Amino acid sequence: MKLFFPHAFSGLSFKRCLAFLLLTFSALSLSAEDGYRLWLRYDPITDKALQASYRSALNEIVLSTATGAESPTIKAARDELKLGLQGLLGFDVPVALTKNATPTALSAEGFQLISQASKQNGTLAKLTITAKDDVGVLYGAFDLLRRIQTGQPVNKLDVTSQPKIQRRLLNHWDNLNGTIERGYAGNSLWEWFYLPEYRNPRYGDYARACASLGLNGAVLTNVNANALVLTPEYLTKVAALAEEFRPYGIRVYLTARFSAPIELSKLKTADPLDPAVAAWWRNKIDEIYKYIPDFGGFVVKANSEGQPGPQDYGRTHADGANMLADALAPHQGIVMWRAFVYAADNKQDRVKQAYREFMPLDGTFRDNVVIQIKNGPLDFMPREPFSPLFGGMVKTPLAIELQITQEYLGCSTHLAYLGTLWKEVLDADTFAAGPGSTVAHVVDGSLYKQKLSVIAGVANTGTDRDWTGHPLAQANWYAFGRLAWDNTLSAETIAREWTQMTYGTNPATVQTITKILLGSRETVVNYSMPLGLHHIMAEGHHYGPGPWVEHARPDWSSRYYHQADEIGLGANRDATGSNALETYAPPLRELWGNLDTCPENLLLWFHHVPWDHKMKSGRTLWDELCLRYQQGVDEMRVIQRQWDSLAGSIDQERHQHVQALLRRQESDACTWRDACLLYFQQYSKRPLPAGVEPPEHDLNYYKAINLHFVPGHPGDQ
Amino acid sequence: MKLFFPHAFSGLSFKRCLAFLLLTFSALSLSAEDGYRLWLRYDPITDKALQASYRSALNEIVLSTATGAESPTIKAARDELKLGLQGLLGFDVPVALTKNATPTALSAEGFQLISQASKQNGTLAKLTITAKDDVGVLYGAFDLLRRIQTGQPVNKLDVTSQPKIQRRLLNHWDNLNGTIERGYAGNSLWEWFYLPEYRNPRYGDYARACASLGLNGAVLTNVNANALVLTPEYLTKVAALAEEFRPYGIRVYLTARFSAPIELSKLKTADPLDPAVAAWWRNKIDEIYKYIPDFGGFVVKANSEGQPGPQDYGRTHADGANMLADALAPHQGIVMWRAFVYAADNKQDRVKQAYREFMPLDGTFRDNVVIQIKNGPLDFMPREPFSPLFGGMVKTPLAIELQITQEYLGCSTHLAYLGTLWKEVLDADTFAAGPGSTVAHVVDGSLYKQKLSVIAGVANTGTDRDWTGHPLAQANWYAFGRLAWDNTLSAETIAREWTQMTYGTNPATVQTITKILLGSRETVVNYSMPLGLHHIMAEGHHYGPGPWVEHARPDWSSRYYHQADEIGLGANRDATGSNALETYAPPLRELWGNLDTCPENLLLWFHHVPWDHKMKSGRTLWDELCLRYQQGVDEMRVIQRQWDSLAGSIDQERHQHVQALLRRQESDACTWRDACLLYFQQYSKRPLPAGVEPPEHDLNYYKAINLHFVPGHPGDQ
Repeated sequence: MKLFFPHAFSGLSFKRCLAFLLLTFSALSLSAEDGYRLWLRYDPITDKALQASYRSALNEIVLSTATGAESPTIKAARDELKLGLQGLLGFDVPVALTKNATPTALSAEGFQLISQASKQNGTLAKLTITAKDDVGVLYGAFDLLRRIQTGQPVNKLDVTSQPKIQRRLLNHWDNLNGTIERGYAGNSLWEWFYLPEYRNPRYGDYARACASLGLNGAVLTNVNANALVLTPEYLTKVAALAEEFRPYGIRVYLTARFSAPIELSKLKTADPLDPAVAAWWRNKIDEIYKYIPDFGGFVVKANSEGQPGPQDYGRTHADGANMLADALAPHQGIVMWRAFVYAADNKQDRVKQAYREFMPLDGTFRDNVVIQIKNGPLDFMPREPFSPLFGGMVKTPLAIELQITQEYLGCSTHLAYLGTLWKEVLDADTFAAGPGSTVAHVVDGSLYKQKLSVIAGVANTGTDRDWTGHPLAQANWYAFGRLAWDNTLSAETIAREWTQMTYGTNPATVQTITKILLGSRETVVNYSMPLGLHHIMAEGHHYGPGPWVEHARPDWSSRYYHQADEIGLGANRDATGSNALETYAPPLRELWGNLDTCPENLLLWFHHVPWDHKMKSGRTLWDELCLRYQQGVDEMRVIQRQWDSLAGSIDQERHQHVQALLRRQESDACTWRDACLLYFQQYSKRPLPAGVEPPEHDLNYYKAINLHFVPGHPGDQ
Repeated sequence: MKLFFPHAFSGLSFKRCLAFLLLTFSALSLSAEDGYRLWLRYDPITDKALQASYRSALNEIVLSTATGAESPTIKAARDELKLGLQGLLGFDVPVALTKNATPTALSAEGFQLISQASKQNGTLAKLTITAKDDVGVLYGAFDLLRRIQTGQPVNKLDVTSQPKIQRRLLNHWDNLNGTIERGYAGNSLWEWFYLPEYRNPRYGDYARACASLGLNGAVLTNVNANALVLTPEYLTKVAALAEEFRPYGIRVYLTARFSAPIELSKLKTADPLDPAVAAWWRNKIDEIYKYIPDFGGFVVKANSEGQPGPQDYGRTHADGANMLADALAPHQGIVMWRAFVYAADNKQDRVKQAYREFMPLDGTFRDNVVIQIKNGPLDFMPREPFSPLFGGMVKTPLAIELQITQEYLGCSTHLAYLGTLWKEVLDADTFAAGPGSTVAHVVDGSLYKQKLSVIAGVANTGTDRDWTGHPLAQANWYAFGRLAWDNTLSAETIAREWTQMTYGTNPATVQTITKILLGSRETVVNYSMPLGLHHIMAEGHHYGPGPWVEHARPDWSSRYYHQADEIGLGANRDATGSNALETYAPPLRELWGNLDTCPENLLLWFHHVPWDHKMKSGRTLWDELCLRYQQGVDEMRVIQRQWDSLAGSIDQERHQHVQALLRRQESDACTWRDACLLYFQQYSKRPLPAGVEPPEHDLNYYKAINLHFVPGHPGDQ
């Protein structure tokens, strides 16, 4: 990573050189504002006073570690500081490396930033980044740079920062053929065919971006797994990626296809209690660690949506997970066993099935097994209550799986800042051990004193130049990483931080973009699935409305979830219905079970509500529903006006890109509104209230919409 | 396309600014040498004398057109000159626009560059770019910039340049789902789902790169066509692309699926003689021209490899082509009807089938039909004789279809500069109208005075950052464009030009890279299919050897082509065999029909040659074959040493990328050699001669190689 200075500059004037550089580095399109740099932009600070303050506070930076020894990670920290400070401040700050004077009480990966002012005896101002391990220093370096990028003072720092969760992972649903399930930003970043020989420099950029947020692991492959990745042919390639990521503290993980012993070695069974199967996995895992000594472990999707698993042999999820865990334990590897299981022939309400299946297994898992649970009991809807397994299982470490990629929130075509969604879930109180038993405290292990803690985000990255397809979807990668490190940060703090780093610190710009981000998820809820509606999207690609979708499987049909009839709308999940409410702690059962106290944003999740039910606004359910859909459309128009107002304040390339996508989003919002209201009107038989725009087309028009080749759904024709 | 100068620079010193710019524009990886700029790099000229000479020759540039009016194309020319001259020379040259003083005799799209020295009376030196139409001026601007990029004088120019072929097209085998058939550089550049709202700036860069070579059309869709592209949903998107390309003189074309009337409008037939079918196409084509007034026309693959066509209804290719041509004629659109047809149940030698099928139709096509013919009679092999339809059909305009993407030459993993291959074909003498009846003269229409001329290259572009997957594969896009404009250019001139533009003008660097390029295709021939061998590659993905491939279709089996037995090797195509020789003109029949006069590089194409046949070297065929394979491997090692020697002379990023690919290519070359020699040795029963390295593995090892997910073959598992 040596900087390449063409000697060509020697004889040129400043102005020419400037022009040349702009032209040269701006590539063909005369512009480089293509989003590739993410939030790691180190553009010069223009506020002279601020710049002077940084200059006087940063005569020297000291990196202090347990060993004081150089390493690739220390080099990465040095490189980053050099790159960042040269860019932001225009000068190099000397960086020294020392051994901690006293053993630090910091936890693994944590860091301290301590400023020391210059003294009259000539001692220069310095800033010390202290950590137990090298990666902590790297995190500290990124933290320092973030402070400067966001215009915060660094002359009186006395900060300790430690991750609340140990394993902070991206889950890539990347297939070996390069496609990404539910990926909306191009192909997989992993160029399997060219590995291990050619290593795209982007691998380093990926790892660096992750490290800047404190993420420390990447599950490279889709949960709908292909056993091939466990063969030597692919392990050599995985090892090459691990090598590229290692300096940045990113460990690799893989998904384990449960039937791999059959597929790769022609075993007759994959029964986890069969000694030959267990031996196969032991050997395979020993082999993996020969390729990748710091391999992190496996994510497993078993007995769900057609994936093989232990139940194929009459065994339990615990049998399957423990067999793998035993083989991984000698290497300190872990198993993340997914709780996203449901079956067509299960007559239980789908949102209860994982709870029913996993609760009885609580306490039967090995120490190095984590149950990985999607935030809600259904499937990454724009809004769900938290999964009742959080607070339900008390003896087992529970990982939360969040979906950064926007499967149900308009893919990378729609803007939806998910920091607000995730905070809603993390801050949700399960009441499992009394008030304050938040999902965050379950996941970070503090509530039940778990030794292992994991948070996983289904990545939204791909080969698109801007990494995430929608320029503003970068904020979701960022927000996930920041919350994984510290779940007490507010969605607003994170949004503002990201905006400042990505679009500069102009206060008006920052205010506008932050505001747009913060409201955007609720806007998506409003125009697609307001008041607790869920799973009424189009089939397969999940883009756009499909309240009419009927499938041979009732649990893949929209009616299963919206239950619209002439009486009303919504799923009855109180005691008179599926009683999914019973999976929650008593205070919530009571609160959510009562039509009057159930939060209106979850109303139709838990109740079948009469069309004329009076809402808090005084309006009927039908009128309220209509107006919420309209509100979603209206908000899209406000967002567009706000974004338009940024023209000239931010670069044209990203401005126009977002503008085009917002235009499409408004049009899609109208489609959602019109399609859903026309559909539900068949049952409500009530007119649209004043304030709701009449639909442009009839219901049949919307039902006939057949989008082709929606990204992220490769099978689509 | 306004240049974005952040005001942040105002207070910064030159040095800081330089550092900042390098850092900022270099993106995350600390380097911008990712190949995105292609050959359109305008880095400053460091030779002071040269720079001074350009400065004194270019006080002003005058653009002179028939109308003297501004247009988007003139603006594109101005922008390019500004970008290029600022970058190369560090200053702005004033650009004036005038009306031609006298009507120019230039042909469409041609241009003149005329220098005028400064005079003692104070008249400044100027350079005039004269053209009939605006796009000629744009081509002239690119020509001028190329001269400066390659260090040529521009003070005494009196140059006229006119394209030899009218329609110079890229054929994109891009599917609507974003994959590319035989594409090895990522996904399709066309982001169908986001069009027409979002228009990736890369569309403009694509068109600009094409225009820099004089290409003037793009067939957007795969020849294995999807009728959906003809629906309004997609035509809106096609129109948006056409709009982005139009300033650069690039017209769009589409592929027409012959069964579209059935698929889109439920007609009962697609019979070209059915009036309802003809009416359907007339209406459809009228509709297309409402969206895209300058739509170019259709490429059609019919009755070949499963595609529908007129023969499904007992009609001829001419019936099908003429029906479409009649509907396109009022709009000046054309039909490019592909001659790549062959059938499993046809007992004729596959290399004779297109000839048999199309020769009788000569003279029956409408004026706006061109028959599009692959360069060879088989299928883009590393070496083939030219297709006998060139010189065979005399009353029909014939387009040549070249394959820029390296389906049979190692995809984008292997280096193979194709300028040499294409020149070999273009310069080949058909003897059809006596000596000098070259393929080039057939295609450019000069031999038989055709009114229409077309050249098509199957594109190697994709979303990879460097456009073509292999950094050196850009040279093939470049070479195709340059030859399309002027087929008299030598492969060496083009290679040198491209190298200078892409890697700078350092003579040693230029010499080394040019040399590597020029030999590279013959190296691929040597290690894969020497001495006229063909179609012995692996099945499906076509990457690597497969002389053992057996298919239910004999014409998809390797044996059909190599015919190895205990007597010898090679396809017998003289009068004692399939007599494919009879499709060539008498002088060639005689030359190639005689084992002693047949060029050795086509020997096994035309003859079944005994293992002990004495070659020109004095060696037996078997020994010669073995040594050719070895030679291919040896050459790969030489190429690697040559490339290694460039370390430090060119940027590290591209150097390492190519280095990694060359390492893989050498390893693949060994696999080709070992696999093929072990396979053929079963028949020759002779030992490997001295100088040939013994194979590392046995034949079964090579036969068992099963590559997964080879790019460009999406169905592969």
